Amino acid sequence: MRMYDLIMKKKHGLVLSDEEIRFLVAGYTNGGIPDYQMSAFLMAVCFCGMDEKETLSLTMAMAESGEMLDLSAIHGKTADKHSTGGVGDKTSLILGPMVASLGVPVAKMSGRGLGHTGGTIDKLESFPGFSVSISNEQFISNVNRMKLAIIGQTAELAPADKKLYALRDVTATVDELSLIAASIMSKKLAAGSDVIVLDVKAGSGAFMKTYEDARRLAERMVDIGNGAGRKTYAVISDMNQPLGLAVGNILEVKEAIGALNGRAPEDVSEACITLASYMLLGTGRVRELPEAEELLRKSIETGAALNKFAEFIKAQGGDERYVYEPDRFPEAAHCCELKAETDGYVSEMLTEEVGLASLMLGGGRETKESEIDLTAGIVFQKKIGAKVSAGDTIAMLYSGDAGKLKAGTARLKGAIRIRTEACAPLPHILGVVDKS
Amino acid sequence: MRMYDLIMKKKHGLVLSDEEIRFLVAGYTNGGIPDYQMSAFLMAVCFCGMDEKETLSLTMAMAESGEMLDLSAIHGKTADKHSTGGVGDKTSLILGPMVASLGVPVAKMSGRGLGHTGGTIDKLESFPGFSVSISNEQFISNVNRMKLAIIGQTAELAPADKKLYALRDVTATVDELSLIAASIMSKKLAAGSDVIVLDVKAGSGAFMKTYEDARRLAERMVDIGNGAGRKTYAVISDMNQPLGLAVGNILEVKEAIGALNGRAPEDVSEACITLASYMLLGTGRVRELPEAEELLRKSIETGAALNKFAEFIKAQGGDERYVYEPDRFPEAAHCCELKAETDGYVSEMLTEEVGLASLMLGGGRETKESEIDLTAGIVFQKKIGAKVSAGDTIAMLYSGDAGKLKAGTARLKGAIRIRTEACAPLPHILGVVDKS
Repeated sequence: MRMYDLIMKKKHGLVLSDEEIRFLVAGYTNGGIPDYQMSAFLMAVCFCGMDEKETLSLTMAMAESGEMLDLSAIHGKTADKHSTGGVGDKTSLILGPMVASLGVPVAKMSGRGLGHTGGTIDKLESFPGFSVSISNEQFISNVNRMKLAIIGQTAELAPADKKLYALRDVTATVDELSLIAASIMSKKLAAGSDVIVLDVKAGSGAFMKTYEDARRLAERMVDIGNGAGRKTYAVISDMNQPLGLAVGNILEVKEAIGALNGRAPEDVSEACITLASYMLLGTGRVRELPEAEELLRKSIETGAALNKFAEFIKAQGGDERYVYEPDRFPEAAHCCELKAETDGYVSEMLTEEVGLASLMLGGGRETKESEIDLTAGIVFQKKIGAKVSAGDTIAMLYSGDAGKLKAGTARLKGAIRIRTEACAPLPHILGVVDKS
Repeated sequence: MRMYDLIMKKKHGLVLSDEEIRFLVAGYTNGGIPDYQMSAFLMAVCFCGMDEKETLSLTMAMAESGEMLDLSAIHGKTADKHSTGGVGDKTSLILGPMVASLGVPVAKMSGRGLGHTGGTIDKLESFPGFSVSISNEQFISNVNRMKLAIIGQTAELAPADKKLYALRDVTATVDELSLIAASIMSKKLAAGSDVIVLDVKAGSGAFMKTYEDARRLAERMVDIGNGAGRKTYAVISDMNQPLGLAVGNILEVKEAIGALNGRAPEDVSEACITLASYMLLGTGRVRELPEAEELLRKSIETGAALNKFAEFIKAQGGDERYVYEPDRFPEAAHCCELKAETDGYVSEMLTEEVGLASLMLGGGRETKESEIDLTAGIVFQKKIGAKVSAGDTIAMLYSGDAGKLKAGTARLKGAIRIRTEACAPLPHILGVVDKS
């Protein structure tokens, strides 16, 4: 088998066999196939695509290129939730404890934030002492004991995807559907959970700008997951505005704690209940969605989810007092308001810009090496559809650095559009892909 | 300017500016742009193409990436002929002296054979002592003195094309029209002649298998040449069988000498007269094609072309006695006949296979380092359309090595098809692109 022939085959729009795809992934990972051949192949894929079977082969080959997390020692079916990345998305912090409190094991592997999107690990590290650097043994024993643990994504997870993504990133071959789907799913499959619930974002703050594109990606990923023997669902949710009101690490943690106390913004509550319901359904904890919803609401009302969150924070070295007394979290040294300049309705939020404004405040990472200001971020008082008068506060901005506060405020200002015409609030859940 | 953006632009089917194309050629040549970005770009070009203006920019940028041969010291307009590569093509050896004998300077840069096609330099080196390694000064002075000189293609000629071609060769991006046209024309433009006559081959022995593809390539190259200020014509000629009867270095030289003595096979004569006529027309030596044809035929009849060939061979160190006494050339140690096994008509010759059979006999190069057996090759007695009876000789095969003779004969046998239905001889000249 020669890489040249595989490039030619894809260039002519033909379908590659499982053996051929495994050959090229293995060859690229071990260095036998050079970057310049792989990038030509990837560009041909951008024009000709890969079919469902090819995409599954690519995903499996990438997943199996490194360590496959073995969760077989966990009692019961495990569930994982993965978001394609958004602004203000703190759902993992809320639904993890909700689902775990109902006895379903949540063995989660999470990442850090980069660019305009935040990361679950950074948020969790707001708790003094909390660490995701626990051994695989500790991880599994924690899940068995209390149904919830989160570890950081290791370099050994799907190294082929890592190498391929780095190449795609510099050769303008990132935006092809099957490559995106395979990249995301390879890591999910390697992370081992039996049930995978995908939160595919659509809108100005998401990689997929339209519902149609997000739906296509969701369908493709669900096919891969099911094809690989994992029960997989996808929820397509709106990212034309941040999820909830808070953006930024400590600010989001506080909003999550509020949600666990029954004070979730409507969209956050809807997102958590919907995603968590499919985790319960997929693992067989419930037979029907309404049953799941009822159990999940109860987990909040009884305080079971909040207590589970505290237990989890403590088990990974964090100070669980912060869960019950969130005023313990430090506040930003500087803050200011963004006010409406005219009367009207909030009609548009350039959500990627909102994420970048938070990054400029110090709340995000420009490069992998950047230090995060955990106190920095934004808390909105108005979202799309809200009626405002000139002088009303749209958002509060927080930063440890006065200069960054000024720059971030200017950027946020450019991201919010107020128009005179009335505008309806946006629905949050746009669709579900359930092929079970 | 970033290479990433240029890849993305071409991927989206947009047109690159002259500045952008020069940026990427310069960057790739000096190593600033890595192979993996260039190969992704080239693959995008395979899907989206380049328009006439982009192709001209690419050609000029590659031509100017190295030494541009300065022929300004030559008196009068110079003419060059370039073939896209075929089997049995000895036209340069014949039309060069014909045109030069009529006072038109022919300053030619030639290459060596590789794979199934032969090269003019290898053929000329059949003359003991002959060398193309002459200085530029010697080259120009020879052309001024006697209107004909040939040098080898140097590494300094269009190095960007050389580097790009090597990359295309391993990334399945060779077969895109604008890239092929730019590659060929960059070298022709760098080689400096005022008038360029292209012989674009079509058929089983050519890179372009169909007349339509060859015509498209010819049109594109003529546009580039004219766009670059060189008077450019293209002749599209058949390569569904070898040109003439002889294939192999000394065998072709002898056929060329025969042609200069007025004993050219019909297709060889037609090819030489047609191509040379456009050289005379382009340089202004004649006003009309019929005038050119008359002069060219006379150059043979009077012996002027033969004498010019001898003068040229001598001027570059060769033994010119071989021109007048071709029996001086050594003969192959071994020879055999390929005979028809059935009655019928020669209906098909897989011409690339014929070239490869000659290569196996020792007459060609598998890699750049291979040594050539100058005596090896094939002389056909029958070509397409010929009626044969079982036992008739179709071709004589020659080699210095008995083992190679056997292997080459087996290969040639597989390349010739005899059918019972009568079959017309093939026309040789299929079309002309003349936009003057």
